[in-house]
Amino acid sequence: MAPADTSTADLFGIEPTAPSVAGQRFTARPSRLLIADGAGFATRDVEQLEVTLDGVPGDRHEGVARPADSRVPWYPRGTPIRNSRQVTILAPDELDEMARRLGIAQVKPEWIGSNMVLEGVPRLTQLPSGTRLHFPSGAALAVEAENAPCRHAGAAVGAFYPDMEGMDVAFVKAAKGLRGLVAWVERAGGITVGCEVSVRVPAQKIWVR
Amino acid sequence: MAPADTSTADLFGIEPTAPSVAGQRFTARPSRLLIADGAGFATRDVEQLEVTLDGVPGDRHEGVARPADSRVPWYPRGTPIRNSRQVTILAPDELDEMARRLGIAQVKPEWIGSNMVLEGVPRLTQLPSGTRLHFPSGAALAVEAENAPCRHAGAAVGAFYPDMEGMDVAFVKAAKGLRGLVAWVERAGGITVGCEVSVRVPAQKIWVR
Repeated sequence: MAPADTSTADLFGIEPTAPSVAGQRFTARPSRLLIADGAGFATRDVEQLEVTLDGVPGDRHEGVARPADSRVPWYPRGTPIRNSRQVTILAPDELDEMARRLGIAQVKPEWIGSNMVLEGVPRLTQLPSGTRLHFPSGAALAVEAENAPCRHAGAAVGAFYPDMEGMDVAFVKAAKGLRGLVAWVERAGGITVGCEVSVRVPAQKIWVR
Repeated sequence: MAPADTSTADLFGIEPTAPSVAGQRFTARPSRLLIADGAGFATRDVEQLEVTLDGVPGDRHEGVARPADSRVPWYPRGTPIRNSRQVTILAPDELDEMARRLGIAQVKPEWIGSNMVLEGVPRLTQLPSGTRLHFPSGAALAVEAENAPCRHAGAAVGAFYPDMEGMDVAFVKAAKGLRGLVAWVERAGGITVGCEVSVRVPAQKIWVR
């Protein structure tokens, strides 16, 4: 990893201490694609996702809007808000590390609502908001944010380890910074297992008031 | 400005060089609100904006989707893409600096499509993607990105300085990093001139591959 460039010139000729890096581009590949079209948020494998501006058709997170939930407690529960959590993306190495921290054999992406397992992005969960994923079909996803781990997902993992107690709470701690990303669809199109994804990370600059 | 904290622990116990800062919160105030409901992208003052998940009703940038344009040349022109440019926000000090660089008396926000002049945010244009603006009504905007200056806006400024040539091109250079933000509506509601805006900047971490 190259060190961040700290030689940023800023507004009005003032030289701030905030570092910056230029935009970055590289390729990655989805090794699995999944859909949550059952009762819970467990997902099942599909060969292709045909995403639209509403998200993943038939998936429980489909929609231009979504009702506000406990993730956004500053909005009254149920208020319609724009849905920026249409697609859930996980990284295999982060799932492995999560399992190691929890002392279990594995955390399967389909247990915790993954729509995509993406290979080739180091520290996937830390990718900045605004990063775009461009697919060969023309489909594009925009990264909203890190997915904060919740107890519901932890309980779903715990259901596969019935001898272990408190997995719901343990998961929230262990999965911090490892639970992948949520994204929204910028442009509709098909996404196929194994296709080449162009990842475009925008220029970054730390903003301090 | 406080220096960025460089003591970040990272995934898998590896200590990267990338710095980070915690989330930040502070207040700001819109001194003007405007709408582009005429023929061009010039805006006119209003006392209140009643935003919806579609954006600013009647504004030329209203819509859940928008046709791809020259700002996103990687999409075929006209392809529907999600509209993350519903609201245009400018800062008075950045407009002043822009005018100084251009050698003109002023750049009025209504000339270049501003929906909001926001007071109290230093280096507004640099606010990170994902920053939220919460209004007393419950309305909320999410910052998409810096608005890259274009020649159309420059030509609009030039129309007020008919004796100066090449303003369209000069603007693109002079307004770089000063042309404010584009944002999308996360939650509907009213925005009033002079109201107190709660600005919530997410935690930031420079991501380097």
